[in-house]
Amino acid sequence: MSSIRVSVLDSDALRQGDASLIEGWQRDGDARIWIDIEDPTEALLEELLEKRFGFHELAAEDSLSKNTLPKYDAFPHYDFFVFRAVEVNKLSAFLGRNFLVTVHTGKLQAIDEIHDRLPEDKRIVSNGVDYLLYEIVDLMIDAHFPLLEKIEECVDDLQEQIFLNAQPAHLDQLLHLKRDVNVMRRQSLPQRELLNLISRGDATFVQKQHLIYFRDIYDHMFRISETIDSERDMMSGTMEAYLSVIANRTNEIMRVLTVLSTIMLPLTLIAGIYGMNFEHMPELHWLHGYPFALGRAKTGICEEIGRPLLSGGSS
Amino acid sequence: MSSIRVSVLDSDALRQGDASLIEGWQRDGDARIWIDIEDPTEALLEELLEKRFGFHELAAEDSLSKNTLPKYDAFPHYDFFVFRAVEVNKLSAFLGRNFLVTVHTGKLQAIDEIHDRLPEDKRIVSNGVDYLLYEIVDLMIDAHFPLLEKIEECVDDLQEQIFLNAQPAHLDQLLHLKRDVNVMRRQSLPQRELLNLISRGDATFVQKQHLIYFRDIYDHMFRISETIDSERDMMSGTMEAYLSVIANRTNEIMRVLTVLSTIMLPLTLIAGIYGMNFEHMPELHWLHGYPFALGRAKTGICEEIGRPLLSGGSS
Amino acid sequence: MSSIRVSVLDSDALRQGDASLIEGWQRDGDARIWIDIEDPTEALLEELLEKRFGFHELAAEDSLSKNTLPKYDAFPHYDFFVFRAVEVNKLSAFLGRNFLVTVHTGKLQAIDEIHDRLPEDKRIVSNGVDYLLYEIVDLMIDAHFPLLEKIEECVDDLQEQIFLNAQPAHLDQLLHLKRDVNVMRRQSLPQRELLNLISRGDATFVQKQHLIYFRDIYDHMFRISETIDSERDMMSGTMEAYLSVIANRTNEIMRVLTVLSTIMLPLTLIAGIYGMNFEHMPELHWLHGYPFALGRAKTGICEEIGRPLLSGGSS
Amino acid sequence: MSSIRVSVLDSDALRQGDASLIEGWQRDGDARIWIDIEDPTEALLEELLEKRFGFHELAAEDSLSKNTLPKYDAFPHYDFFVFRAVEVNKLSAFLGRNFLVTVHTGKLQAIDEIHDRLPEDKRIVSNGVDYLLYEIVDLMIDAHFPLLEKIEECVDDLQEQIFLNAQPAHLDQLLHLKRDVNVMRRQSLPQRELLNLISRGDATFVQKQHLIYFRDIYDHMFRISETIDSERDMMSGTMEAYLSVIANRTNEIMRVLTVLSTIMLPLTLIAGIYGMNFEHMPELHWLHGYPFALGRAKTGICEEIGRPLLSGGSS
Amino acid sequence: MSSIRVSVLDSDALRQGDASLIEGWQRDGDARIWIDIEDPTEALLEELLEKRFGFHELAAEDSLSKNTLPKYDAFPHYDFFVFRAVEVNKLSAFLGRNFLVTVHTGKLQAIDEIHDRLPEDKRIVSNGVDYLLYEIVDLMIDAHFPLLEKIEECVDDLQEQIFLNAQPAHLDQLLHLKRDVNVMRRQSLPQRELLNLISRGDATFVQKQHLIYFRDIYDHMFRISETIDSERDMMSGTMEAYLSVIANRTNEIMRVLTVLSTIMLPLTLIAGIYGMNFEHMPELHWLHGYPFALGRAKTGICEEIGRPLLSGGSS
Repeated sequence: MSSIRVSVLDSDALRQGDASLIEGWQRDGDARIWIDIEDPTEALLEELLEKRFGFHELAAEDSLSKNTLPKYDAFPHYDFFVFRAVEVNKLSAFLGRNFLVTVHTGKLQAIDEIHDRLPEDKRIVSNGVDYLLYEIVDLMIDAHFPLLEKIEECVDDLQEQIFLNAQPAHLDQLLHLKRDVNVMRRQSLPQRELLNLISRGDATFVQKQHLIYFRDIYDHMFRISETIDSERDMMSGTMEAYLSVIANRTNEIMRVLTVLSTIMLPLTLIAGIYGMNFEHMPELHWLHGYPFALGRAKTGICEEIGRPLLSGGSS
Repeated sequence: MSSIRVSVLDSDALRQGDASLIEGWQRDGDARIWIDIEDPTEALLEELLEKRFGFHELAAEDSLSKNTLPKYDAFPHYDFFVFRAVEVNKLSAFLGRNFLVTVHTGKLQAIDEIHDRLPEDKRIVSNGVDYLLYEIVDLMIDAHFPLLEKIEECVDDLQEQIFLNAQPAHLDQLLHLKRDVNVMRRQSLPQRELLNLISRGDATFVQKQHLIYFRDIYDHMFRISETIDSERDMMSGTMEAYLSVIANRTNEIMRVLTVLSTIMLPLTLIAGIYGMNFEHMPELHWLHGYPFALGRAKTGICEEIGRPLLSGGSS
Repeated sequence: MSSIRVSVLDSDALRQGDASLIEGWQRDGDARIWIDIEDPTEALLEELLEKRFGFHELAAEDSLSKNTLPKYDAFPHYDFFVFRAVEVNKLSAFLGRNFLVTVHTGKLQAIDEIHDRLPEDKRIVSNGVDYLLYEIVDLMIDAHFPLLEKIEECVDDLQEQIFLNAQPAHLDQLLHLKRDVNVMRRQSLPQRELLNLISRGDATFVQKQHLIYFRDIYDHMFRISETIDSERDMMSGTMEAYLSVIANRTNEIMRVLTVLSTIMLPLTLIAGIYGMNFEHMPELHWLHGYPFALGRAKTGICEEIGRPLLSGGSS
Repeated sequence: MSSIRVSVLDSDALRQGDASLIEGWQRDGDARIWIDIEDPTEALLEELLEKRFGFHELAAEDSLSKNTLPKYDAFPHYDFFVFRAVEVNKLSAFLGRNFLVTVHTGKLQAIDEIHDRLPEDKRIVSNGVDYLLYEIVDLMIDAHFPLLEKIEECVDDLQEQIFLNAQPAHLDQLLHLKRDVNVMRRQSLPQRELLNLISRGDATFVQKQHLIYFRDIYDHMFRISETIDSERDMMSGTMEAYLSVIANRTNEIMRVLTVLSTIMLPLTLIAGIYGMNFEHMPELHWLHGYPFALGRAKTGICEEIGRPLLSGGSS
Repeated sequence: MSSIRVSVLDSDALRQGDASLIEGWQRDGDARIWIDIEDPTEALLEELLEKRFGFHELAAEDSLSKNTLPKYDAFPHYDFFVFRAVEVNKLSAFLGRNFLVTVHTGKLQAIDEIHDRLPEDKRIVSNGVDYLLYEIVDLMIDAHFPLLEKIEECVDDLQEQIFLNAQPAHLDQLLHLKRDVNVMRRQSLPQRELLNLISRGDATFVQKQHLIYFRDIYDHMFRISETIDSERDMMSGTMEAYLSVIANRTNEIMRVLTVLSTIMLPLTLIAGIYGMNFEHMPELHWLHGYPFALGRAKTGICEEIGRPLLSGGSS
């Protein structure tokens, strides 16, 4: 079900409501309008975006399509942006002189927050729709940081576990994490480029005095993509470490086996040669010699060697 | 056998037929013509392209040669493009004010589809030959997506199988997949560059109002080459994972061998020393002691250890 | 607790003191002022920076935030810089015609040193606030070199230890070192870019005749980031070496085991076949034959093989 | 022995001969001359190039030196090029308004072919010396393709052999192949750059209407360097595959050993414990029991396990 | 001990001597001067460079500091360069209209050679101080080639030895070689950039007609940095090869062990079961059966297997 939320700002007075508010608003008037469309249908987009606002069909299509990467297209009476959010696929925004239309599939935290803050935040109301867009994108971009921190923790955690007890499951987790980070990277690079472009003043309907705000988001975005790169680096290191830890473990086990064989094989040979048929072997005449012999073997040697061997990994 | 299909669009009337339609058309007239040549012969190209249309010999040669990479060459009265399709080697296109000549070896889905849609699609007819070219290239580029998804599935599948039971055959598949992706990459980079150049307005016979359509293809092409890069990344990860999984498996097997030896070798030594000539070994006198002894060994120890060992891989 | 240190330079006379000195100073006067703020509070920044000096809220926020990367923002009556120091997160600097405001969290060696040198150093006093900024940044950047040398020593040391006796702990240290170097790299690249930009003359309030000083810092910064890159390279080499050293060790151990088995197993078989029931085995009748047999096995063979095996690693 | 071949084209009449033809030709006349010098001596170059044609000493030196990379130097009355051929080190070319001097050490297929074709090819004669240069370079560049295909086949072959039976010799071949490809790459990059520069029209004595021909060579050169890159990629993959195949093989062998030990060691222990002194062992009394026992062991177990083990590799 | 050598060229007459010659020379006269300072002291530099010639303090400092990377700084009446030589840290050069001051720590072959050649080489004398600088730098740069060839030989040698008998010491050598090459690379990149800049004509006191000479050095420098890159590549390949060779060796040894066990263990079991108490074992009654049994085991089996095992590596 698609839902439409409309906010109209007229002479600093704010009215919030549903699609019915659109009718009263005029493109060449002074009133500014923000229309947020959640889970749009093709019909709605055509009706509202193409017919009512005269947006280009390709832009309207892009706002529906699932995989569009962040981009900016300039049109005569509006700017078209696609941004990427952490939670949803993307946020499409049509920004004009006195209107902002945002389209997204799925709930978007940043939109909700700004919508609720609008009645109280004089500043957004007085600064215009481009500043409104800044506030939304700013919240959206900053939502990347907790996610990145969580990924960093995951990698740290995996690294620690690998040093404790490397297992194929860790590799699997690492590969999945890597793929997630790769997806983020693929989207963050064009997003960074997009914000760079806006902050340079290339977007027609972003006012000069607000460029510095977008520059600020760009700086955050730059930090995000740097962090992503460094996480990729860490993961590669962890991958290599995994292999080394396993190689080390094999080496340890082999040493145990070799030390054991070095002691046991010659003794076994000696035992084989002489058949231990010496005349002086008093144990043979003990009553409990048989069970004792087995017992000593088990407790004596296993105790020494068994510990590091068994704690070295799990099956 | 080379085949020629001709479509003439005159005052919004469309006639489709074979090479005989070319004669009626004039380069300085108003009628627009689309000539599609499948599996051309050298003679045909020389006759039709060099003599009738006056195309440059190098362009005509390029449209025959098998390995030309995507490119754009500007000539006084036409633009020459080479695009890459998924199914066939390439599509060469000569675009003039009122003509479009497309040349390809082998059947090309996109061409067939547009050819069939032409009689019904008013828009293509009225928008001119550059828009017609857009429609063809758009279909051609979008044909990459299902292929890329299939490759992604293959890699996922391989990764899963490697974690279950890594085998050299998986490596072999991975290397073949990698080569295919490398070929795609090698062709997608100049193709992306070519579309960027067209969408910037560098091609003479693409009208300004249609640039945005080529920009849209460029965005798709950008996503394609990003996806290719990320698939290459995934494959490298899988390669590394393979090695780690094998190392892990060797480690597991070595541990089994070592645990086994740690238990067995000392016991064998003890048995060797005392010859088990104890006075109190009642089993020696049992009737079925001999078969029982062998049986216990087989079921007792193998049952415990044999399972993970045998399921760990196949020969 | 935030602390403020103020230095006022009036007609070559220097007065140093606390925040009370700010009042006497005027933005359009001739006196120059340097205000250093350590561990600022939000309230203080708003009061002092935004109200008294009229700095932009975003710049004021950046000077508080923990993770801002090195940057430069131009404002009408001042330049805003963020630099990175080795000891603290960052140094924010507001540079105007006759004022320099530096903000940092935590003690900063370079600031303290310049503050103390100020009364004696005629040159800083006479050259103005941009030269003062140069002196601070110069000290701050040069503090990287001892750190880099220490890291280089660490890597050398690790490499040597790995060749002597590779252990998982070395890997762990290497990964931690790598992360530290990655963090340095992430910060040094934008810092280098920032210094390049200043030395090119892009900052409004750095005088032309002082550009060469910033160019000198830029050269140092360039060397720092080159050194970081080469350290990353060395670490990758060490990582690979680790794996090879372990593989080598496993190989050595396996050879010992195989040589041992090649000698022992056939002998054991022979002993098993003939039961050594030969008629001519005089040792069986010795009194001390039993203990002697065990003893010979231990000293004879272990002496030869045991040494390289045991020195090859530790458990 | 240096050899000189001269072709003079005067009013579409062609005379071919030795150095004596040079005397009749004049720099400001209409006749065009092509001088090809094979295996030049320093004296000859100084006499002919520096004195007769007035070429710069550095250019003359470059045309002798063995390792010069592809380059272009502009001089007032001529262009100086260095190209790289597959067979010989390089081809130096001095191109003026009406002369072309080519210098090379060793036989060069392309030169011979064009020299022989000259009397029959009206086109070369009428198009001038820059078109003549194009024909030579075109043949020279296209000689890379068969070589690249051969390398690709080699790598494919090696890959296949590695999967069948990996051996250190394969590694060795791979490293040698890699070095050859690296050398080609090192030369192809500046060559590509050089052709790009010529096709852009930067060379003074290449006529505008012939630029498209050099553009065509550039496209081929581009494809060559792309192919080289992809071959490097394939080789890296093969290198990694080698390691994985070996790891796999070790794993297989270890499994055989472990399965064998799991079966044999417990049985040997049991045999050791009971000494097999059971009362009911009828085989002991058979006449052929001794040879039979050995025989069974050999055929029974070796037959099952021996095959994959021996076919798994060679010593 | 710092040493100063001075050469004064006045109307094509050359006088060479010590620091006393400086006094007679005047900055606005026609006489040209070359001052070479070896192992300078801080005092000397201040006295001579800062006071007598008026060089900037930063440039003077740079000419003393040990780690400055190649660079160019333009000053009103002179150019300041830092070049890197193979033998010493660096060569600093101050080039003016009629003076050249070169500063270096340690003996520099190129300087000595040019100094000695000066009296005989009319060309250097007549071409001016910028040409003199060219001759020095040319010799200095060309001194890289023998070094690079030596490194290439070392890597080839190491590669060959690794295939014959891989040992950790080879790894160690490889890592050291890699570090040396990395240092060369770090210095060659800015040096190349510097020469590019000079050959483009950016240095004020290099005359237009001499640019082509610096362009020639740039071409050499380009080849040097390409060679360095390819050596890095070769080393990475060698590193990977090392690991593969070791893996191969372990594999070989494991196969020997497994084949041995496959033959021996079952036989040992059989011997254990039947105790070889067959009634028909004639060897037991031989006089020399005991020593013969041990002997056969040693010569029989070891001869076959022992060879490849022992030649496969060393401990």
